[in-house]
Amino acid sequence: MRAPAIWLRDNCHCPECRHPGSGQKLFGVTDLPEHLAVEDEWDSGTDVRVRFSDGHVGVLPRGLAAIDGPPADDRAEDAKRTWTRAELGAPPTVDWTAYLGDPDVRITALSSVLRTGFVLLHGVPVRDRQVLDVAAGLGFVRVTNYGELFDVRVEDSPVNLAFTALPITPHTDNPYRDPVPTLQLLHCLSNAAEGGDSGLVDGFHAAAILRAEDPEAFDTLASTPVTFAFSSADAVLRATRPMIGLDPYARIREIRFNNRSLQPVPVHAGTARFYAAYRAFAQVLLRPELTLTVRLGPGDCLVFDNTRVLHARTAFASAGERHLQGCYADIDGLASTFAVLTRETSAADVLAALFAGEGAADYLGESVTVAEHMLQTGALAAAAGAPDHLVAAALLHDVGHLTGPISGNELMSGTDNHHDDAGADWLARWFPPSVTEPVRLHVAAKRYLCAVDPGYADALSPASVYTLGLQGGPMSEQETAAFEASPHHVDAVAVRRWDDQAKDPAVPTPVFGDFTTLIGRIVGSGQ
Amino acid sequence: MRAPAIWLRDNCHCPECRHPGSGQKLFGVTDLPEHLAVEDEWDSGTDVRVRFSDGHVGVLPRGLAAIDGPPADDRAEDAKRTWTRAELGAPPTVDWTAYLGDPDVRITALSSVLRTGFVLLHGVPVRDRQVLDVAAGLGFVRVTNYGELFDVRVEDSPVNLAFTALPITPHTDNPYRDPVPTLQLLHCLSNAAEGGDSGLVDGFHAAAILRAEDPEAFDTLASTPVTFAFSSADAVLRATRPMIGLDPYARIREIRFNNRSLQPVPVHAGTARFYAAYRAFAQVLLRPELTLTVRLGPGDCLVFDNTRVLHARTAFASAGERHLQGCYADIDGLASTFAVLTRETSAADVLAALFAGEGAADYLGESVTVAEHMLQTGALAAAAGAPDHLVAAALLHDVGHLTGPISGNELMSGTDNHHDDAGADWLARWFPPSVTEPVRLHVAAKRYLCAVDPGYADALSPASVYTLGLQGGPMSEQETAAFEASPHHVDAVAVRRWDDQAKDPAVPTPVFGDFTTLIGRIVGSGQ
Repeated sequence: MRAPAIWLRDNCHCPECRHPGSGQKLFGVTDLPEHLAVEDEWDSGTDVRVRFSDGHVGVLPRGLAAIDGPPADDRAEDAKRTWTRAELGAPPTVDWTAYLGDPDVRITALSSVLRTGFVLLHGVPVRDRQVLDVAAGLGFVRVTNYGELFDVRVEDSPVNLAFTALPITPHTDNPYRDPVPTLQLLHCLSNAAEGGDSGLVDGFHAAAILRAEDPEAFDTLASTPVTFAFSSADAVLRATRPMIGLDPYARIREIRFNNRSLQPVPVHAGTARFYAAYRAFAQVLLRPELTLTVRLGPGDCLVFDNTRVLHARTAFASAGERHLQGCYADIDGLASTFAVLTRETSAADVLAALFAGEGAADYLGESVTVAEHMLQTGALAAAAGAPDHLVAAALLHDVGHLTGPISGNELMSGTDNHHDDAGADWLARWFPPSVTEPVRLHVAAKRYLCAVDPGYADALSPASVYTLGLQGGPMSEQETAAFEASPHHVDAVAVRRWDDQAKDPAVPTPVFGDFTTLIGRIVGSGQ
Repeated sequence: MRAPAIWLRDNCHCPECRHPGSGQKLFGVTDLPEHLAVEDEWDSGTDVRVRFSDGHVGVLPRGLAAIDGPPADDRAEDAKRTWTRAELGAPPTVDWTAYLGDPDVRITALSSVLRTGFVLLHGVPVRDRQVLDVAAGLGFVRVTNYGELFDVRVEDSPVNLAFTALPITPHTDNPYRDPVPTLQLLHCLSNAAEGGDSGLVDGFHAAAILRAEDPEAFDTLASTPVTFAFSSADAVLRATRPMIGLDPYARIREIRFNNRSLQPVPVHAGTARFYAAYRAFAQVLLRPELTLTVRLGPGDCLVFDNTRVLHARTAFASAGERHLQGCYADIDGLASTFAVLTRETSAADVLAALFAGEGAADYLGESVTVAEHMLQTGALAAAAGAPDHLVAAALLHDVGHLTGPISGNELMSGTDNHHDDAGADWLARWFPPSVTEPVRLHVAAKRYLCAVDPGYADALSPASVYTLGLQGGPMSEQETAAFEASPHHVDAVAVRRWDDQAKDPAVPTPVFGDFTTLIGRIVGSGQ
């Protein structure tokens, strides 16, 4: 698709059009001619020049992507790695000392909040108000009527059930604010009480399950604004929003769910339908397979996306001491910290060094190196006419086998450092889920194909047959169904089939440099 | 409409269902039976009791309203008083000393931000960082990568055009954040430069004009998420949202408009249509009749809703000193401060005192008192079967003639204290626009009827004929069209016709107490 002249003109980078200091546009859309055509276009050697019918000569960076399709939105469901308890294994955990000392570990931790919805920091000093330091390191604290921070422990006259020993079902915090705090931190100072375990649920995944199982209920919750309210001596708060917030492309973007503060909904013919939908969503959120249970110990600090990840806690004995300090912040600040850290590394440069260095290692029992294997896989995808994201997934599917820069990732416990998860998590600093998730699933795809394609297992290499056993063998029927529910499973199977063919030392192998333009297209566009 | 049993059960206020300390619900929706019926219902003397089929006896406050229709949402367009420059006259202005000393003045100022979109504080001390004190008095400062506050003056290496002497067209700030700061403060420390005037535009009104004039353009902007971005040494921010944000009822709820930071939009068949819509909206925003110009002098502090009111500034000579300090905050905190202040006054109590006191005054040349006149007007509306909000508007249409509690309102300059505006502004602390706007328009309705209804002027009382001249005489054709564009004009005409009939000393007049239940229904429900 050719971009219209007005699009090219609006994206002109010449110093007349953009302020050199700030890079901001110096014109408004009404300053541009309404009827505009491109009269000439050439490559200047450093950029693309365009002569418009109004005489202006535009300067366009070569890499300026004319993307089709919905715009990338880091807050929408397709930018997330959704999860069940089983898919996640243990919670993504990062050691506080490593977090402070190693930018690569910080990148991993922040990426986990952005993509998976949370991270557990381990070994944070057990100190009053420490949670504010943690928050200030990843963004900006959002002060509310609770103050800069709040203490979660049993109080005599609680204004909120959080400050009792009662159990609390999965919820998002402060739905009665608008804007709602998008990030929450909970830092454990002591937890000697019986009970008081924390539960986490991926609300985006739960909403997607509701959409698949009961589309009418999903539509009802997405189209019904409801009011949440809170009142205390010094605050009266109300906000009116749907429980499931969608963007104009119907992508899930925000969950607000809190039984405690929901106000009476309007009474009309649709009220019974609303209650059925509310109940159906609440039932999905309570499914044990969606709840990851974490027992916070002193020094643990949970950081989570309060527009997506619901948290819960079991009842506890008010005799034993349990004390958390929490605060709110915003995820746009965290995303900025992540982007500032990652922009200092170029995906293409880091990967090129990795392919040339660690990549020269033997590939477990095969007669090609790891780098040759990945380059061949990428070449097969490109030869098949696969789209950019899928070629990249094929090219990069085994980066988790390499160490070096990925070693920072070893600090992520919880996934047992399977090379599929490790690689996907590490790639997430640059690449969107359309690349990382087929990488994550390419081992599962092997187990899947062994279950559904009788001829597949026969054609595996001896090394691959050996590792199949270690990886869990062919999938069960239940595992097969779960695998097929992933939006990325078809791409993962495609990567897997190229993967299996890419072990031939006799085949001409491309060099990494053949793929740098393609990588730039993906990383540059934020696609 | 009878509320379903599940609705009644979910709103039970008994101590088993609600935590006595916090008032929060102690159950989730899944704890309630799926199939539930009401078996018995009675009035206990203090509340309504309901026996449900699961044996639970529910306690429901008598005033618990079963509202039909879209839920009230203070952030949506129907909760706002939208404006053009002419409709607003001068900006709503509040004196800082009075603001500090008189809760009634604070209520007026905060109400102006919530309903009109902004207020101008006058006489704020010219002191470094003073803007933070102003913000802390009405909510909570939102810290960003700019820090707690930002200085708007000419800088050598600006990261943002705000910090140059260039003109800036109407825009909202920080559209590249999500959540966007919903409130902005700009405090003037000096303004000796030539130029540098501030402009304000009601973005909700501009969007409503676009919807009326070019519905396709409106739909395009409301359904196209676009990306705004900002990058500096310490921040990389991106947010993807439509320029016009709607709620599920298609009510306007948020404007994001900033030519400077808009990123390339996706290229597809709809791109040319997007640009036409973007241009159309920008053109509406630039109409002179929508722009209120304010020259900020030292000690002036603008407080405005950054999701609704766009601000602009003219170019200025960088030689003359111009220095503003600004900060961001959130409007939910301001709304909470407003609600805490107003909940201490009961609408019915204050109005009853007003009717009994000031209301006993003569009604300009008529043979009834002001109170009798208003009570008769309300009775006529009730007798005509008007809905609650319209009966209230009729009952209260002349409160602006009374002084007493309204005198705090005198500090609002800008409306010349016409009794229509003064009354509507004062009522806005409790009542929604469905009540306040017919009050605001009831004088205009007289001028309108004189223009469109030939028999109307003949039937006016002599005093009313006299005031018509002072009020501007019959409307011009242009004024008539503008009046008919208001969503409240039909109600205003209805109030006016009852108003004109309610001057008969011989008619039995109700007492104020006859209307307290109706007022409670409106104020209590937040309708």
